[in-house]
Amino acid sequence: MNGQLCCYDCGRTYGIDDRSRCSCGEPLWIETDPSDFEWPDAEWSRGMWRYADVLPVSEPSGVPPGTTPLVRADRLDEYAGCSLSLKHEGQNPTGSFKDRGSAVGVSYAARAGYEWVGTVSHGNMALSTSAYAANAGLECAVFVPADTPAERLELIARHDPHLFRVEGDYGQLYHETLALEADVAFVNSDTPFRVAGQKTVAYEILEQCSPETPDAIALPVSSGGQASAVWKALRELNRAGLVDDVPRLYLVQAAACDPVATAYREGCASVSPVTAGDTIAVSIANSDPPSGTRALAAARDTGGAVVSVPDAEIRDAMDRLSTTVGVSVEPSSAVAIAGIRTLSQSGAIEPDDDVVAILTGSGYKERYETDVRSRTIDLDGLERELGAIVG
Amino acid sequence: MNGQLCCYDCGRTYGIDDRSRCSCGEPLWIETDPSDFEWPDAEWSRGMWRYADVLPVSEPSGVPPGTTPLVRADRLDEYAGCSLSLKHEGQNPTGSFKDRGSAVGVSYAARAGYEWVGTVSHGNMALSTSAYAANAGLECAVFVPADTPAERLELIARHDPHLFRVEGDYGQLYHETLALEADVAFVNSDTPFRVAGQKTVAYEILEQCSPETPDAIALPVSSGGQASAVWKALRELNRAGLVDDVPRLYLVQAAACDPVATAYREGCASVSPVTAGDTIAVSIANSDPPSGTRALAAARDTGGAVVSVPDAEIRDAMDRLSTTVGVSVEPSSAVAIAGIRTLSQSGAIEPDDDVVAILTGSGYKERYETDVRSRTIDLDGLERELGAIVG
Repeated sequence: MNGQLCCYDCGRTYGIDDRSRCSCGEPLWIETDPSDFEWPDAEWSRGMWRYADVLPVSEPSGVPPGTTPLVRADRLDEYAGCSLSLKHEGQNPTGSFKDRGSAVGVSYAARAGYEWVGTVSHGNMALSTSAYAANAGLECAVFVPADTPAERLELIARHDPHLFRVEGDYGQLYHETLALEADVAFVNSDTPFRVAGQKTVAYEILEQCSPETPDAIALPVSSGGQASAVWKALRELNRAGLVDDVPRLYLVQAAACDPVATAYREGCASVSPVTAGDTIAVSIANSDPPSGTRALAAARDTGGAVVSVPDAEIRDAMDRLSTTVGVSVEPSSAVAIAGIRTLSQSGAIEPDDDVVAILTGSGYKERYETDVRSRTIDLDGLERELGAIVG
Repeated sequence: MNGQLCCYDCGRTYGIDDRSRCSCGEPLWIETDPSDFEWPDAEWSRGMWRYADVLPVSEPSGVPPGTTPLVRADRLDEYAGCSLSLKHEGQNPTGSFKDRGSAVGVSYAARAGYEWVGTVSHGNMALSTSAYAANAGLECAVFVPADTPAERLELIARHDPHLFRVEGDYGQLYHETLALEADVAFVNSDTPFRVAGQKTVAYEILEQCSPETPDAIALPVSSGGQASAVWKALRELNRAGLVDDVPRLYLVQAAACDPVATAYREGCASVSPVTAGDTIAVSIANSDPPSGTRALAAARDTGGAVVSVPDAEIRDAMDRLSTTVGVSVEPSSAVAIAGIRTLSQSGAIEPDDDVVAILTGSGYKERYETDVRSRTIDLDGLERELGAIVG
């Protein structure tokens, strides 16, 4: 505790928990002694561009992503079956991990003289790429599936990209955009510049844990781009001598669309397309992941695994995050927690393992079915109503 | 530029912009040389708790707020009439500046042995307080006006507070909750612990600008709590000898509900309640601000001013932020930009002034009326459709 209550106007002072307004009627604030205060190092303000030495571009464009929190979630340890920490990527500029790759991809395109950037996405990546293109003054072509919900399109449209709603196979769309002759720099989910930016999340996690190293990192897998990026970072850090014991990578999918988990389970050397069912984890429902085989290699190489989890467990993990940690995430992020629980139950993750879950996106950008319990009261009944439950 | 493209599988390498997949069919990533890489200082990971020495509590609770970006918005300089930078508080854990105060208020309540915290809010503060209470394992009573929209209640309800929809005067509700005998620690908009946490935004801005000092800071004003907090920080930093020329504080309100601007304009010594009209800036429509007079003093003491802006200008500023800077904010944040423009037009702010606008909340948590321009195409027509506009 540092300080006492003070009135800015009359100067009266009070004990720190005495009251919130002065006897003169004006509000109080807390006086503290700043005389020994000095500026800490403000290098953090560069965000992920602190790592420019290991990035393919060094000129930032747009709001710098990164310096997202890593927090212990001890109230979820029992549920997760390990010592759980959360890397909250929903706090990036457009609310998801995608900003790291967009920042690098768009900065590169601008520097290389492109006037257009493009992406294929039905959500976070479309929003993120549009925002970074807007900042760089580049035109942006966004290709979304024709059935993308209107409320999601509204968020993307704010940044004024050229929005194409495409009828046809989404997996094929990914490949066809990259094969186009048009003078557009596509920054799709696993393209090299995106992967280069995405890798900074693992740099940050390891920096935040340093000098310790977590035993494992768990994350959702869709195209395999993000899993590739995390693996890439771990390899680099290992090579640099900064990480000796490389964390195991656990990749998690929704059971309704789990091509990488299927390949892992069946011991296949590569990932084959699956027929996708419906899932609440729409952002990661990629039935033909272009970096699926690379993601599979990442899990195997680090001694991790790939698993999938049913929607009911995803929803349960999502609710627990918001009610016990105070963090609201999209379903596609909650899969990481549900996956850790599954892996603990099977013994792959042990109770004393330090595990970091990457929460890829904020939950506040969309509405979900939530049980809204409220009571309507009259101002006159305030004390009675509150007293009845506080006791 | 640093690195070359490489296949993780077969090891083939390519020039950095050659292609995105290897001739073997697998995706590429970028090899960089990490041999000279060293960990930077990870103190930033504590967020605003880096300033614990000047806070009334030092034990963090929940996801640490702070370390939000400060970015130059040179593409808006002409519009704003100055050299404009943006402090993006929407990147806090629950998407608004309120997390700074909630973190301190809830941490204090937990440490002081309270089992309940409470707040009076119809939006950001309700969400933020609920989330921090959830993390601390405290019960939380949230009092919202009875007409709060269901979609906003859904976000708040995720963190499972006790939600009271109150019929009656909102300004009176604020005062009555603080007068309650119930054993609940209320962390309302301008209560001392909240103000103590909120002040860290100004510490960060000045840290990020150091060794320079901005000429002015502009922010929206509602209850006056945040304006008080920024003023408090500037006074402390001045006293500590870290800031000699204290920035002018410009406070901005929506024209439909502008009690503080009215008092400023009319040269009054204190702020009187007004009758509020409708505005898109709902979060700051406080017709009887409990720290209004303190906010007025902050503007006058620093040589700043208080102005108000009409909805059309707020909406215009909001659109320009999203299309030219790539930042989506709520209307209540955009008022700061509209206010700066107004102040430049009147000559109060000059073209070479360095001005920081505090963007208080993310725009992604709500839906607005946006002109969604999109075209539906068939996959077969991809090249033709894109070629037609890229040229």
